[in-house]
Amino acid sequence: MIELDLDEPPVVVTAGTSLFAEALSAQAAEPREVQWAPPVPGSEGALAAIAADPRTGPAAAESVRKMTAARPYWVDVIPASQALGLSPRELLHAGPPVSWADASGPLRGALAGAMVYEGLAGDVDEAARIAARGGVSLAPCHSRGAVGPMAGVVSASMPVSVLEDTEQGGRAYCTLNEGLGQVLRYGAYSPEVIDRLRWLERMLGPLLARTLHRGGPVDVRSLIAQALQMGDECHNRNRAATSLLLREITPALLEIGAPGPDVAAAFRFISGNDHFFLNLAMPAGKVAADAGRDIPGSAMVVAMARNGTEFGIQVSGTGDEWFTAPAPIVEGLFLPGFGAADANPDIGDSTITETTGIGGFAMAAAPAIVRFVGGDPADAIRNTLQMYEITLAEHPVYQVPVLNFRGTPTGIDATLVVRSGVVPIVNTGIAGREPGVGQVGAGLVTPPMPAFADAVRALGHRARG
Amino acid sequence: MIELDLDEPPVVVTAGTSLFAEALSAQAAEPREVQWAPPVPGSEGALAAIAADPRTGPAAAESVRKMTAARPYWVDVIPASQALGLSPRELLHAGPPVSWADASGPLRGALAGAMVYEGLAGDVDEAARIAARGGVSLAPCHSRGAVGPMAGVVSASMPVSVLEDTEQGGRAYCTLNEGLGQVLRYGAYSPEVIDRLRWLERMLGPLLARTLHRGGPVDVRSLIAQALQMGDECHNRNRAATSLLLREITPALLEIGAPGPDVAAAFRFISGNDHFFLNLAMPAGKVAADAGRDIPGSAMVVAMARNGTEFGIQVSGTGDEWFTAPAPIVEGLFLPGFGAADANPDIGDSTITETTGIGGFAMAAAPAIVRFVGGDPADAIRNTLQMYEITLAEHPVYQVPVLNFRGTPTGIDATLVVRSGVVPIVNTGIAGREPGVGQVGAGLVTPPMPAFADAVRALGHRARG
Repeated sequence: MIELDLDEPPVVVTAGTSLFAEALSAQAAEPREVQWAPPVPGSEGALAAIAADPRTGPAAAESVRKMTAARPYWVDVIPASQALGLSPRELLHAGPPVSWADASGPLRGALAGAMVYEGLAGDVDEAARIAARGGVSLAPCHSRGAVGPMAGVVSASMPVSVLEDTEQGGRAYCTLNEGLGQVLRYGAYSPEVIDRLRWLERMLGPLLARTLHRGGPVDVRSLIAQALQMGDECHNRNRAATSLLLREITPALLEIGAPGPDVAAAFRFISGNDHFFLNLAMPAGKVAADAGRDIPGSAMVVAMARNGTEFGIQVSGTGDEWFTAPAPIVEGLFLPGFGAADANPDIGDSTITETTGIGGFAMAAAPAIVRFVGGDPADAIRNTLQMYEITLAEHPVYQVPVLNFRGTPTGIDATLVVRSGVVPIVNTGIAGREPGVGQVGAGLVTPPMPAFADAVRALGHRARG
Repeated sequence: MIELDLDEPPVVVTAGTSLFAEALSAQAAEPREVQWAPPVPGSEGALAAIAADPRTGPAAAESVRKMTAARPYWVDVIPASQALGLSPRELLHAGPPVSWADASGPLRGALAGAMVYEGLAGDVDEAARIAARGGVSLAPCHSRGAVGPMAGVVSASMPVSVLEDTEQGGRAYCTLNEGLGQVLRYGAYSPEVIDRLRWLERMLGPLLARTLHRGGPVDVRSLIAQALQMGDECHNRNRAATSLLLREITPALLEIGAPGPDVAAAFRFISGNDHFFLNLAMPAGKVAADAGRDIPGSAMVVAMARNGTEFGIQVSGTGDEWFTAPAPIVEGLFLPGFGAADANPDIGDSTITETTGIGGFAMAAAPAIVRFVGGDPADAIRNTLQMYEITLAEHPVYQVPVLNFRGTPTGIDATLVVRSGVVPIVNTGIAGREPGVGQVGAGLVTPPMPAFADAVRALGHRARG
């Protein structure tokens, strides 16, 4: 026993398993418990190698600096064939690479629907047969500078928004949001779905292009920043951002000289869908994340994406390599008539929002979202606070009023994830497991740690030289 | 000394002056301090009489039930002459009654500007001479079922919105919001101000009337409820509500067949002013507060209003009687180039928002407002929490997400104000002291306790018999 001579009672700090703290509490001491867990087994060597690599700190700082310096503007709406060089038999999808054979129900539904829309097949059964024998080529949206919500299917004729980073020059692309209910991105493919896709192609896309040409580019970063002061987190709550966007573009929309009923239909369509802005928030994230890519030694995550079968990440210091694990199940609230048995595993590129400091990471700014994804407002605040443990920076423009305007936690460091055991918090829609069903709910999902551990091992390998 | 035999350490509860608690703390005890202060001196007898009156509890409950049951819709825009029966030489103003001789600078500026606008005078100097010799009659907006922000001047030709309580049948009225900068309500009267009033009368008012006739009444209660989930408190922050309103009315505005440039000008005008919705939130409050009027025995406040010289309240159980005290000074943030010396005392009917459970009472829903009125987000939450101490109910529809969707504190009980020493929290714009200057800042203001004490004495007098 060591004799101590103290002016004040001693304070005991405990770390690791809570047994230590509990034992002290039982003896009427008041331990200060530090959240700490050993790193993921098998990653210790890689973590040590990365820590020893002199590039590590500066590389991470540089990648998050470039990510947060991005200033994405919505500059145009053009066909995917032109924007992404897509040929008629090329289809893009959300998440890491996947074959037709391994594709989940909603992704198959969306791919088949897109083939019918493109005239590659007369119906979805024929489309499925063509796809199964390799009659179309599949590639991730991320491989072409694009992102897509849920199934994320992009085909040549679809209009896509062009987002340009006016600070650093990058571009990113995303389709127009189709609205709610029966929509392609949730794997639905009814004639109503295909008709809407044609209306987007022939009516809304060209109208929005003319509106942007007349009114000028729209500062999407500014809209996100404002919406975070208005209860959005810009992944599953985009009501304020969609409202502000309408205020921004409607004057020019009224002035392009389009027929009155077309203008009214365009306004009603956008106003009828609080998620319209999501398809701008996502490419705004993509262009920011891409600015932080390919910095040797950086452990910053530059993509998190799910194809409905696998969850995958890409890290700045490891190029275009995907680190994947089975897509997890989403915990959340279901629409009337649906339950957990109807849910597909996690799907979509919309995790680009969390990758860049909004979405689940900004839930403290959007307490009302818990009515949609479950939990209570205190959970929303806790989620945001916890994300500071695994991120590199506080966003200089995206702020959370209730945290006294603290910048959102931005730039996930894969080594911090593996060291702490804290995985990114993601909120998301839930697609029906069967093709053709559509959305069945929304909730929170925990990305799989093995994807982060594999990324850290690959980075460790590079650190060792 | 009393001997106590306790299983646990005793807990000391202290009330009243904090000296008791401080003395215990100095002796290493941990007192639980209860916020309590003696009632305002001179009001004890009235409070006792009111407490002994069997009508008191049921009357208060009935008045707040009727206030919160109101369901105000925006049904029309018509000239004030028609809506309020105003003759050309009648002018309404904010707050309790006041004469020209006692009117403050901004109220004189607005009255003179309105007289020029109505053609009653060739310029503001002539208008002042006419007013000084009694050439116009003045009355509070509240006396005609109307409310007006800041100076709150209403004259016969101005278009006013008609709000109708579809549940209980009442109606209330308010002018259209003029926008920011040089505007009549802040006492400005330049030619630009008068021209804008004419444009409201000849263009925007009729366009909005046609829009409402085509699209149908707008559910203002629903817009307020949604805006409280989006960072507004609907007094000094109306950005979300104005955005949602535009989404609601624009489809019909596009379909009334008005010339394209007029429609674009109307949209730009509303979208260019985040406070446009205030002039709907205010009459929505007025029609709700009026539903709770004239319940014998009820101490519920049904009006708080300031004319720039005096602050006044009306209470349900004392009819149309005003209880007044000198208007207080606003503590807040000033626009560049202005300071406290430029500020007029508190002015405007916009405190109808606080009277009905929003505005300062709902600041916890609007943490970003502190950038406009001062303080930090924690203050905003504390302000809302404190208002539960002096209110009768939690609003069934207006909710604060960050307080786990608790209803806003609604229905101020004047006896609770006098008993507790807690006065309602009000946030407000600050008008320049000199006529013609306009807005100089925004902040928080503490209504004067004597007005509440006088109301309680009057109610006590009625309780006695």
